[in-house]
Amino acid sequence: MLSAPMQQQVNIGLIGGGTVGGGVYKALQANGALMASRLGIKISVTKVVVREIKKSRPVHIPAALLTTDFHALIHDPEIHIIVELIGGTTTARSVVEAALKAGKPVVTANKALISKHGETLFALAKANKTNLYYEASVAGGIPIIKVLRESLIGNRVVRLYGIVNGTCNYILTRMKAEGAEFMDVLADAQRLGYAEAEPSLDVDGHDAAHKTGILASLAHGFWINPQDIYVEGIRHIGKLDIQFATQLGYTIKLLGIVKCLPSLKKSKGPRQAIQVSVYPALLPKDHVMANVSGVYNAVLVRGDIVGDTLYYGRGAGQDATASSVLSDLADAALDLKCSSRDRVPAFVDHEKNGKVLSTGELVTRYYLRLGVSDRPGTLASIATILARLNIGISSVIQPEGHEGATVPLILMIHDASNASMQKALKQIEKLPVVKGAPVLIRVEDFE
Amino acid sequence: MLSAPMQQQVNIGLIGGGTVGGGVYKALQANGALMASRLGIKISVTKVVVREIKKSRPVHIPAALLTTDFHALIHDPEIHIIVELIGGTTTARSVVEAALKAGKPVVTANKALISKHGETLFALAKANKTNLYYEASVAGGIPIIKVLRESLIGNRVVRLYGIVNGTCNYILTRMKAEGAEFMDVLADAQRLGYAEAEPSLDVDGHDAAHKTGILASLAHGFWINPQDIYVEGIRHIGKLDIQFATQLGYTIKLLGIVKCLPSLKKSKGPRQAIQVSVYPALLPKDHVMANVSGVYNAVLVRGDIVGDTLYYGRGAGQDATASSVLSDLADAALDLKCSSRDRVPAFVDHEKNGKVLSTGELVTRYYLRLGVSDRPGTLASIATILARLNIGISSVIQPEGHEGATVPLILMIHDASNASMQKALKQIEKLPVVKGAPVLIRVEDFE
Repeated sequence: MLSAPMQQQVNIGLIGGGTVGGGVYKALQANGALMASRLGIKISVTKVVVREIKKSRPVHIPAALLTTDFHALIHDPEIHIIVELIGGTTTARSVVEAALKAGKPVVTANKALISKHGETLFALAKANKTNLYYEASVAGGIPIIKVLRESLIGNRVVRLYGIVNGTCNYILTRMKAEGAEFMDVLADAQRLGYAEAEPSLDVDGHDAAHKTGILASLAHGFWINPQDIYVEGIRHIGKLDIQFATQLGYTIKLLGIVKCLPSLKKSKGPRQAIQVSVYPALLPKDHVMANVSGVYNAVLVRGDIVGDTLYYGRGAGQDATASSVLSDLADAALDLKCSSRDRVPAFVDHEKNGKVLSTGELVTRYYLRLGVSDRPGTLASIATILARLNIGISSVIQPEGHEGATVPLILMIHDASNASMQKALKQIEKLPVVKGAPVLIRVEDFE
Repeated sequence: MLSAPMQQQVNIGLIGGGTVGGGVYKALQANGALMASRLGIKISVTKVVVREIKKSRPVHIPAALLTTDFHALIHDPEIHIIVELIGGTTTARSVVEAALKAGKPVVTANKALISKHGETLFALAKANKTNLYYEASVAGGIPIIKVLRESLIGNRVVRLYGIVNGTCNYILTRMKAEGAEFMDVLADAQRLGYAEAEPSLDVDGHDAAHKTGILASLAHGFWINPQDIYVEGIRHIGKLDIQFATQLGYTIKLLGIVKCLPSLKKSKGPRQAIQVSVYPALLPKDHVMANVSGVYNAVLVRGDIVGDTLYYGRGAGQDATASSVLSDLADAALDLKCSSRDRVPAFVDHEKNGKVLSTGELVTRYYLRLGVSDRPGTLASIATILARLNIGISSVIQPEGHEGATVPLILMIHDASNASMQKALKQIEKLPVVKGAPVLIRVEDFE
C-alpha cells in the first residue's frame, strides 16, 4: 500500500493479458507519459498475470512482466492497484476479493462480476477501507458510471434508456439495412467476430440486463439483482417486423429501460417502485436513440433537473474498454495520492425503500404481429378478446402484397399491463384463424 | 474554512439570486436531501448575495438569507464554498478573486470569466491552495468538463466538435424547418426569449468561441486565449444556403472545432499546432451532430484510444445550469471533506509547446454561393481564378428555377487553405459577371 501521501508513481498489477489486458497495456505504452503530465502521477505496469507465460497474445507484453501467480502479486507491497481483466465470475471473483481483503484498490471491467456480486464486493471494499472502480463494466468507452454518480448527483433519474449491447445493435442495424433475417445476420456476425459462437448472453438480453441492473442500482440507490429484471432478447424479431416498423415510422432497438413511474413516485406508499427491464422496442425513427447504429452504444439519462442528456460511444472492444480502465486508474491513483479512498464509494445504498416493479405490472404500448387466415370475422374475434380485457387498439394494418392462406395482421395497441397482454395473447393464440406464434414487441415513446 | 476533515455539512454562499442563482437554490430545495444521502454531506445555502434585497426574483428566496455584501460573505468563516452566479467579468471577477485569495473553493457558471481570465484565476486558486470549479461554464447540463479532464484522461483528443450555442442552433433549426431568413427568425427568437435584444455575443460566434477555447485548453493542456480563435457567426447564412445544403445532403450548424492536425502532430517540430475555430459548416445530414436540434447542445470528442464519443443535453437555462453547479458543489464538498482540494486542479498546463494554428493555415472544404449573370463564360472566368490558385472544384450546381439577370451558382470546393481561398474570393468579387457578396461556408466531414 501507498504510505507517503504525495508519492508520484503508482505501480499497478494487471490480472489478464488478453484482449482487454493487452489493450490497457498498449494504451499505457502510448499515452502513459501524457497521463502522467495531466495527473502528476506516473502509472507503471509492474506485473501482468497470465494463465500461460509462453502463449502468444494480441498485444506483446515483455516476458519480464509476466507471471502466473496472482496471489504473490496481490500481496506484493510494491503493487498499489490491482486491475482485474480476466472476465467471468469464478477466478475473477477470487482475485477481486483477495485484493480488496488485502486493502488494495481494484479496477475491473467485469460487468458479470459486478452485476452478480457487486453488493458483496462493494461491502468488502468498504470494510477493508479501500475502493472498487468499474467504469469499464458498462458501455465500454462511455463514461456513464462517473456521469451517473458524479455529474448527475443533483438529479433524480426519472428515465434511463440504454443501447448497451453492441452485438444486438449490430444485428438489428444490419437486419434493417439489408432486409435480412435474424439467423442469417447472426451467422455472418459470428463469422466476422461481432457475435460469440454461443451468442445467448448477448442476443437473449442477459448482457444488457447486467449493465442495465448496474445503472439502475446506481441511479436509484438500492442494489438490483439480475433475477429481478424483466428480460427479452431479439431472437423473435423477424425481417417482417423491421419492415413494418419502418413503414409505421419506427426503428427497433434492444433497450435497457429504467423508469421511475410517476404514479408510484407520487404515492405515499412505503416503497418506491422502479421499472428495470430489457426488451426490444419500436422507437420513433427520428429520435436520437433510433439513430445509434452498428456496434455503438448510447445511454439517455433524463434527470428531473437537467432534462434529457445522452452519452454515446463504442460500447466494447479493446481500446474503448481500455479508455475507461485508464480513467478508473487515474481516479484510483488520485485517491491514493490524496488518501481519499472513500471519496466516491463504489456504491451508496441510500434508498432503503426501493423495489423493482413486478413483470406483470409493466405497462407499455405494443406492436402485435399475427399470421391470420384472410377471411371475414378474423379481426372481430381478435378485437373482442382485447376488448374484454380492456385493452385498446390504436390502429390495425393489414399490409398489401401478402398472398396465401396466411397473411400478416399488425395491431398497434394502447398502454396495457404485461399481465393483461399475456392473458390476451394466450386466448388469441387459440383462435383457429390465428396461425403460428404471435410476435409482440413493445413501443417506447420516451415519455 | 473547513477544519475538521470529516465534517458532514458544508455551508455555501450564493453570489447572485437571478435566473441561475435561483435555479441552484430551487434545485437544492428539491433534491438537497437526496444529494446528502448520496454524498454523505449536507449542502446548506447560508447566504445569497443580491444587488437589491427587495426586488422580485424568478425563484423566491427567504429574506433572511439575502444580503448585498459579498465581502462579508467571503470572509465569513461559517461559509465554506462561494458560488459565483452573477455573470459578466467585472464584479464577478472581483468576487472570484477575493474568494480564492481567502482560500475558499469557488464554483462558477461564468464562461466569459473563465474564457478571459481563466489562466489568472486558476493560478490564483493554486497559489491559495484552493480550487475553482466551472462545469456549468460550458454547455449547460452536459458534463463535458469532467468528461474531458477525468473520463478521457488517457486519451489524446484528436478532434472535438461542439454545438455549444443554443441560440444559433435554435435559429438554424428554425430557418431549415420553416425556410425562413435569418433576420426573421432572429426577431421571433428575441420575442420568445431565445435570443438577447443585443444578439451579437451569440449570433456572431463569440459565446461559442469562449466555450470552445475552454474545451480546447483542457483538451490540449495549454491556455488558449479567445483572441487566437478564428470566429465566424451565422448572420451571412441565407435561406437559399440552407435549401441548397439540404439538396446536397447537408445540414448547416455552427460548430466549435478543435483539431489536432495529423501532419503537424507527426512533425518533429518544436510546437504542436491545434486548430481552434468557430464557424458555421455543412455537415453530412445523417451524422449524429447534424441531428442535434433546437436549443440542445452536443460535443463530439474523438480520443485516440476511445474513438468517437458524444455528449448531448440542454446547453443553457436555469435548470440545466443548476445541475452542473450541483455537480461542482458535490466535488467541492468532497474535496473539503477529504482535504483533497488539489485532487483535480482547475487546469493543468502540461503542453509547453502548444500553439494555435493561424487563420491563414486553416484548411477545409467549402461551399461557395455566388450571384452571377446567366451568360456564357461566367463559370470559365471563376474556374480560371481558382485554378491559378491551385484550388480544386469538386462540383458545380446551377440550380434550376431561378430566373432574372442574376442567378445563383454553387461551387463545392476541395480542401484549400483560408489564405488561398480569401485571395480567390477577392478576385472573384471583382469579376463583372459576379453580383453581390459571395457566401462562403465551410464543409465538415468529421474526418
